[in-house]
Amino acid sequence: MSAFTSLLQVVQNCDKYPYTIDSSLEDEIHHAVPFILGPYKIGNVLPSVLPDLNVYNSKADKKPFKITTDAIKFEDWVNTFELRTEVMKQLMDTWREEKAFKTLAGWRNELYPVYGDPERSDNVAFVMERAGTPLFGISTFGVHLNAYTKDENGQIMMWVAKRAKTKQTWPGFLDNCVAGGISYSYSVKDTVIKECEEEASIPADIARKANSVNAITYYTYSTHGLQPESEYIYDLELPQNFSPTPCDGEVDCFYLWPLEKVKETILNNEWKSNCSLVAIDFMMRHSFITPDDEPDYIDITYGLHRKLEFPTPRKGQQHQ
Amino acid sequence: MSAFTSLLQVVQNCDKYPYTIDSSLEDEIHHAVPFILGPYKIGNVLPSVLPDLNVYNSKADKKPFKITTDAIKFEDWVNTFELRTEVMKQLMDTWREEKAFKTLAGWRNELYPVYGDPERSDNVAFVMERAGTPLFGISTFGVHLNAYTKDENGQIMMWVAKRAKTKQTWPGFLDNCVAGGISYSYSVKDTVIKECEEEASIPADIARKANSVNAITYYTYSTHGLQPESEYIYDLELPQNFSPTPCDGEVDCFYLWPLEKVKETILNNEWKSNCSLVAIDFMMRHSFITPDDEPDYIDITYGLHRKLEFPTPRKGQQHQ
Repeated sequence: MSAFTSLLQVVQNCDKYPYTIDSSLEDEIHHAVPFILGPYKIGNVLPSVLPDLNVYNSKADKKPFKITTDAIKFEDWVNTFELRTEVMKQLMDTWREEKAFKTLAGWRNELYPVYGDPERSDNVAFVMERAGTPLFGISTFGVHLNAYTKDENGQIMMWVAKRAKTKQTWPGFLDNCVAGGISYSYSVKDTVIKECEEEASIPADIARKANSVNAITYYTYSTHGLQPESEYIYDLELPQNFSPTPCDGEVDCFYLWPLEKVKETILNNEWKSNCSLVAIDFMMRHSFITPDDEPDYIDITYGLHRKLEFPTPRKGQQHQ
Repeated sequence: MSAFTSLLQVVQNCDKYPYTIDSSLEDEIHHAVPFILGPYKIGNVLPSVLPDLNVYNSKADKKPFKITTDAIKFEDWVNTFELRTEVMKQLMDTWREEKAFKTLAGWRNELYPVYGDPERSDNVAFVMERAGTPLFGISTFGVHLNAYTKDENGQIMMWVAKRAKTKQTWPGFLDNCVAGGISYSYSVKDTVIKECEEEASIPADIARKANSVNAITYYTYSTHGLQPESEYIYDLELPQNFSPTPCDGEVDCFYLWPLEKVKETILNNEWKSNCSLVAIDFMMRHSFITPDDEPDYIDITYGLHRKLEFPTPRKGQQHQ
């Protein structure tokens, strides 16, 4: 895709799952089948996933799923955290072996929590391999950190990461200084500190000063599947004499840029899609994008805070 | 209403217009009629307003409105900014004289822009008396300013206003330091500077340092009518030796409070409903409310950023 004509277009290019489903359209995005647990919708399954799911289910000695045109559910016997987790593990392992889906080539060996009943203080319904979540349209949670410093005149300069050319997704694109998914049993802040070390060599005593400032939510999709995502946002002001450095091979290099350059590269489509939303939110919170200058100010906030229809984490279940 | 059990409850007590309309329910909130301009919905009219509107329309020599069970529209001849503005002025003046609606007792002599076609660079479709906007469920725009200072230890202390006991709405309740509606022809920042002077005696040279940081959107209602609102949020760090002081009689006094006290009084239902949302957003942006401690963190952001179904202002039309 070429350059964008507005920041709103940037936001809508990420938050692109339709707000209104129109089943008269052919595009499969309008024909996802809800993944239901009890009275809650916990995901969506695209038509392109259904044939493999039907085959898997029909071959099983004891079917794990109830599959109808209206909904996908676990069978009644799959009624505990452990059983749901085991059923999903078996399915993902099988599909990985069969090379059934592209997204599973990026296997992470990382378990993501899937949330259910929001009335429960611990509402993790099961956990599953991170790379498989787009196949069921599972709502995932991550952290993104804006690292910045202030120059002699008090002007904000933002640390921007350039993704390694070897990354499976978005190689060579620009990214926030630090970002990562929240795995099962990690707290949000612990994830920030861990990722700071792993991705940017920022030691814990500096990373700990990162401030929780917001969350953004959007519903995107790609050739991997459906990705409704919530990102907890942290800001970290780094000392002028400290530079983040690549560590785990995920990042090629870091740039220190004025916000004008950040905005310019966003409009020029040089950023990983969801990361540009994090930078836009930063520029709004730091008065670089203002309602008197940005015609789409309010519409942009809508796209940064889409109300997702899935249960959210309750206190305590992420950090046990 | 008594104390709240959670911040999410506080948010939902303001953002309370139903997310799903259920016409099988009797409550009139489920039976509002859309106010339509061209292809855009620009408001909603409650059933309790319709009898007066029908009487007014039927008495007119030249009917200004098309009223059906599905929609309220201007008649075809009411096709310019000037004509729409004049039609609404006549209606509001008449209803004010007749004392038809409680909200018009709070007549402001202040014109609010009503936005239409978002494809136009200037999309003010007409202007109308501020006090009348709830009768048509018009989306309104305002500014709220969080004034704060940092104590010797760097702890944030927030300036909180106590509304005068003589205020027509929410007398004696707590409020943000400065807040005001954006009248026709004012820019957002100019409104901030004007209201700082009028409400808190903050001179322009200090007020100008206020930073645009966010916008919140919610859809509330009261005995006055329907109020979908967007508030542009500004933060202003005041010098330790400066205190805001009441000026125009709207504010009884100002308190300088730690955020613990702000949160406590919010949960204790001592705040004007929408102003507590502004303070909650401040506490989130300043790391006092964090995702590891607040179980409803993401659900709160949904309520602070409701996607309203009405056109938003385009660049240039607020500041001409």
